[in-house]
Amino acid sequence: MKTLVIVAHPNLVDSGTQKFLKTSLAKMDSVTWHVLNEGHFDVTAEQDLLQENDRIIFQFPLYWYSAPAILKQWEDEVLTRNFVYGTGHALAKKELGIVVSTGDRQKGFVAGGEEQFTLSELLRPYQALAHKGEMTYLPPFPIFQFAYLSEQAKQRLLVSYQQYITNSDFESFHGQELWFEQQLSKKISEVQGSSNSQKTAQILGVIQDNRENLEELGWTLSMIKDDEDE
Amino acid sequence: MKTLVIVAHPNLVDSGTQKFLKTSLAKMDSVTWHVLNEGHFDVTAEQDLLQENDRIIFQFPLYWYSAPAILKQWEDEVLTRNFVYGTGHALAKKELGIVVSTGDRQKGFVAGGEEQFTLSELLRPYQALAHKGEMTYLPPFPIFQFAYLSEQAKQRLLVSYQQYITNSDFESFHGQELWFEQQLSKKISEVQGSSNSQKTAQILGVIQDNRENLEELGWTLSMIKDDEDE
Repeated sequence: MKTLVIVAHPNLVDSGTQKFLKTSLAKMDSVTWHVLNEGHFDVTAEQDLLQENDRIIFQFPLYWYSAPAILKQWEDEVLTRNFVYGTGHALAKKELGIVVSTGDRQKGFVAGGEEQFTLSELLRPYQALAHKGEMTYLPPFPIFQFAYLSEQAKQRLLVSYQQYITNSDFESFHGQELWFEQQLSKKISEVQGSSNSQKTAQILGVIQDNRENLEELGWTLSMIKDDEDE
Repeated sequence: MKTLVIVAHPNLVDSGTQKFLKTSLAKMDSVTWHVLNEGHFDVTAEQDLLQENDRIIFQFPLYWYSAPAILKQWEDEVLTRNFVYGTGHALAKKELGIVVSTGDRQKGFVAGGEEQFTLSELLRPYQALAHKGEMTYLPPFPIFQFAYLSEQAKQRLLVSYQQYITNSDFESFHGQELWFEQQLSKKISEVQGSSNSQKTAQILGVIQDNRENLEELGWTLSMIKDDEDE
């Protein structure tokens, strides 16, 4: 699976969040980090880039409950009617994900809260775009008040984010386990021969055993469920 | 009441809808027609303009379920945190209205429809902005498929639009009647002495009689209601 991360941020160099996210993806294969810059877009080049990828990510800080203007300009110029739904559906079956950061508190995004609406509601225009283009809309990936996160919370965020970008099945526990196994196998081949290599291999062994046990449990449960349904 | 119409349209000269709307307001007092042009904004001048007006209108064609990028850029630059909700609430108690045109069919904007969401849902980011700034959010004024409207439908649209922009109480029937009376009085003073003047005065008389009759009916109904509640 190939992923295109479209980064829309007017002050990218000053953004700690974006720096962190970029570093998180440093060793990830099949990821294209694509920063939008002021000015007009090369429509054909942008459309080609979209077609080469399977998962498209809009990544931005929330400004007035939406993306910064630069992403909208990109949408207005690049996503021509004919490309998205007119003569063909060039984006059909691709995935659309939203990585959105905000300095506002998570608890404000609720009816009666400070922001009055949930992020799911505020991001409807992107969901509608995905629908029009026959894309699969992924659950948005929100980052609230990054600057206040503990180191531990940032590490958890890093792993979730890596999966949101590169794991084709990031929503199921099974998919997450498989992804971890892949990452560890890669790690082992990288550090071959060192003492870390052995430790990592042991961890991988434990995770694989766990997964096999869980898969067996899953089978047993589904058999019990089948019996009950009869 | 003073109204500021902020027009965001990348191809204004080619837009029949915008031409029609502009003409509709030609003889309206207290309306400022403010077109956003490409480039950066004079933040102080824009903020002053906002403060001089009571009703703020965002007027635009719907591009990808939102305003064209130029309006978002204006929002991102002009609506600074301190201006809207930081140190003060410069827009508090002002009204925010949305005039949005689309070539898509009205019936598509519904769950299960072609666009999947209602316009009310898609415009949530503006509603959230109004909430944050302690503004009153007006029911949006949508224009569907303008090019296909009959002449009669366009005339009805013209009058509704004029009221959306200039009538402080456009939602109640009583407010609409008062507005019509004002418009006719203005018309009469303009055409003083001509044969049209007499006809217009007669129409005004009929409307005024009607309103008085309706007001009496309203009183009677509210007395009946009071009796029932006791």
